[in-house]
Amino acid sequence: MKVENKHYRTIWQSQNKKNVIHIIDQRLLPHEFKIIDLLTYRDAIEAISDMAVRGAPLIGGTAAWGIYLASIEAKNNNKSKDYIIEASKEISSSRPTAVNLQWSVDRIIKAIEETNNLEEIIQIAETEAKNICDEDVANCENIGKHGLDIIKEISNKNSKKVVNILTHCNAGWLATIDRGTATAPIYAARDDGIDIHVWVDETRPRNQGAHLTSWEFINEDIPHTLIVDNAGGHLMQHGMVDICIVGSDRTTRAGDVGNKIGTYLKALAAYDNNIPFYAALPDSTIDWGIRDGLKEIPIEERDAREVSHISGLLDNKIQSVQISPSSTESKNFAFDVTPAKYITGLITPRGITKANEIDINKLYPEF
Amino acid sequence: MKVENKHYRTIWQSQNKKNVIHIIDQRLLPHEFKIIDLLTYRDAIEAISDMAVRGAPLIGGTAAWGIYLASIEAKNNNKSKDYIIEASKEISSSRPTAVNLQWSVDRIIKAIEETNNLEEIIQIAETEAKNICDEDVANCENIGKHGLDIIKEISNKNSKKVVNILTHCNAGWLATIDRGTATAPIYAARDDGIDIHVWVDETRPRNQGAHLTSWEFINEDIPHTLIVDNAGGHLMQHGMVDICIVGSDRTTRAGDVGNKIGTYLKALAAYDNNIPFYAALPDSTIDWGIRDGLKEIPIEERDAREVSHISGLLDNKIQSVQISPSSTESKNFAFDVTPAKYITGLITPRGITKANEIDINKLYPEF
Repeated sequence: MKVENKHYRTIWQSQNKKNVIHIIDQRLLPHEFKIIDLLTYRDAIEAISDMAVRGAPLIGGTAAWGIYLASIEAKNNNKSKDYIIEASKEISSSRPTAVNLQWSVDRIIKAIEETNNLEEIIQIAETEAKNICDEDVANCENIGKHGLDIIKEISNKNSKKVVNILTHCNAGWLATIDRGTATAPIYAARDDGIDIHVWVDETRPRNQGAHLTSWEFINEDIPHTLIVDNAGGHLMQHGMVDICIVGSDRTTRAGDVGNKIGTYLKALAAYDNNIPFYAALPDSTIDWGIRDGLKEIPIEERDAREVSHISGLLDNKIQSVQISPSSTESKNFAFDVTPAKYITGLITPRGITKANEIDINKLYPEF
Repeated sequence: MKVENKHYRTIWQSQNKKNVIHIIDQRLLPHEFKIIDLLTYRDAIEAISDMAVRGAPLIGGTAAWGIYLASIEAKNNNKSKDYIIEASKEISSSRPTAVNLQWSVDRIIKAIEETNNLEEIIQIAETEAKNICDEDVANCENIGKHGLDIIKEISNKNSKKVVNILTHCNAGWLATIDRGTATAPIYAARDDGIDIHVWVDETRPRNQGAHLTSWEFINEDIPHTLIVDNAGGHLMQHGMVDICIVGSDRTTRAGDVGNKIGTYLKALAAYDNNIPFYAALPDSTIDWGIRDGLKEIPIEERDAREVSHISGLLDNKIQSVQISPSSTESKNFAFDVTPAKYITGLITPRGITKANEIDINKLYPEF
């Protein structure tokens, strides 16, 4: 997508130096647009765990390039393939909730299974990392295409009045390689000339809505309004939301959706007000090994400081203010699980499915 | 309640100068404890509209003292009673959602109906303002007593394990004259030796949970943990909440509760997880003239800057950081309405009632 009218992906290999991977430092957005270089697999891990990059698909992409970097390191430092295997394990455990991370690592490890030749491994890892990213772009485009049908239908039903979409967190371009998951249908609708407006949940504690989704929409000229996470229920009660679209960090084979903390509350409000609630996700987000999201999706607990302190712009610098008394403790659960029964459907690259095991399986019969 | 072990109310008349009313500047909490003086009724209006004081009962108390100040001003400036009537209208419209404000103003205006003598009016207004405050304290004590029964029952059912209470916003001591509404049962349980722990919603946009409820609990030594507003659903899904208690800014005669934005989302989550959800409120919060909260409770829309900027402590100063891009617009709805069907009961000074017109009317047969 565009940043000041120039096209970017969220992660890309340097054109001049093949062993340098570029990412956008998302911790500084929307206040500063800075590109940082990943030179080692540990840089990739740090980028993931410290959330310079975030979003299930982009975490997967970064993990893939991380293994590629580990392969180069192995060769340059005369290590064996074991170095890469160890690195891949470290990468896998850099964040717990998004299943794409493991999926991406597994895919490359499988691809290099047959060889111990480091030169060959580098080649394979590079190709796989590129493919994972390119496929993600294609996935998001397809999600956009299918999601567009839903938005179009609402627009037609509404006699083409503006379609109000609510989204939580950032399942946007910045969470993927390009176009986003939850935002792909939004961009597709805009491209199709449908009149849309998006309510952007700020998404505490890390404010990905206020920081990232807003910034994407400014750059892409999508009409939007920022609200606090508390506001969505009120909007839905008063007919100000036509559809909710969110992303997913891990989806069970029965359709439960693990996503940014607070997603569940919005799903309940949508359900209570008969508003369609969709999760948009690539196949790699589906964890085929689990059914019961509440029991089986691991929920990351992050630093309490993300709750007690909030960062933003002050005097042209990004600074952090303390909002609670020093002796008050905080807890910071990063995700929650929305049971399938509250989800109208999943928007996948293959099409739209109801959120239940039978229907999901019809779309993905091979799993 | 206590501030550094000294007892305070939230509003009081100066002991030396009867025409000076003291309040705590709640905009500076928890970082600075500052008492400010109200010298004119316009000071009272400013304190209400700018939220130096907030919370339905305290707004009512401040409005009452505001009319008292207007009476003194009328006498000192050789104005007629009309000055007071005009002032009372201005006070009434200083914030729209809390019905106590109108109730309090009406009560004093009625009490001075029979006289045009300014000396007499000052006397009556002073007595009424004192009474309104004293009655509020008694109300909160009674709310605490009745609420304690509920918490005690949960504690007994749980084999006296810690009772986890979730509260939203600040319906605490700082929202009333003393003890609070939603917090009164919490303080009563503590006094009764029940093992409790409170989950404190930070309550964006103004963070009354992070700023005020946490600060109260620090001063009163109540075990508590601060969470983002998004987290409550997850906690309830995982058995980490035994009961929700919130306040109310305006309650309809049918039991709908207008309260801080986001209350509705927590009520939905409580309902979904079979967790009791109570609103604690004095009688003055009930608007006997309306039934349908969604249609009839006016929802205040406040400055968008409360969404785009967050204030907190930085370098020992209270400063404000900007969280969203400058060109992103925000909307700031301050309250929402929780339909009665999601409310287990109302904790009132007269006792506990189910949230429906027939049962409420049994407790308040005179209305």
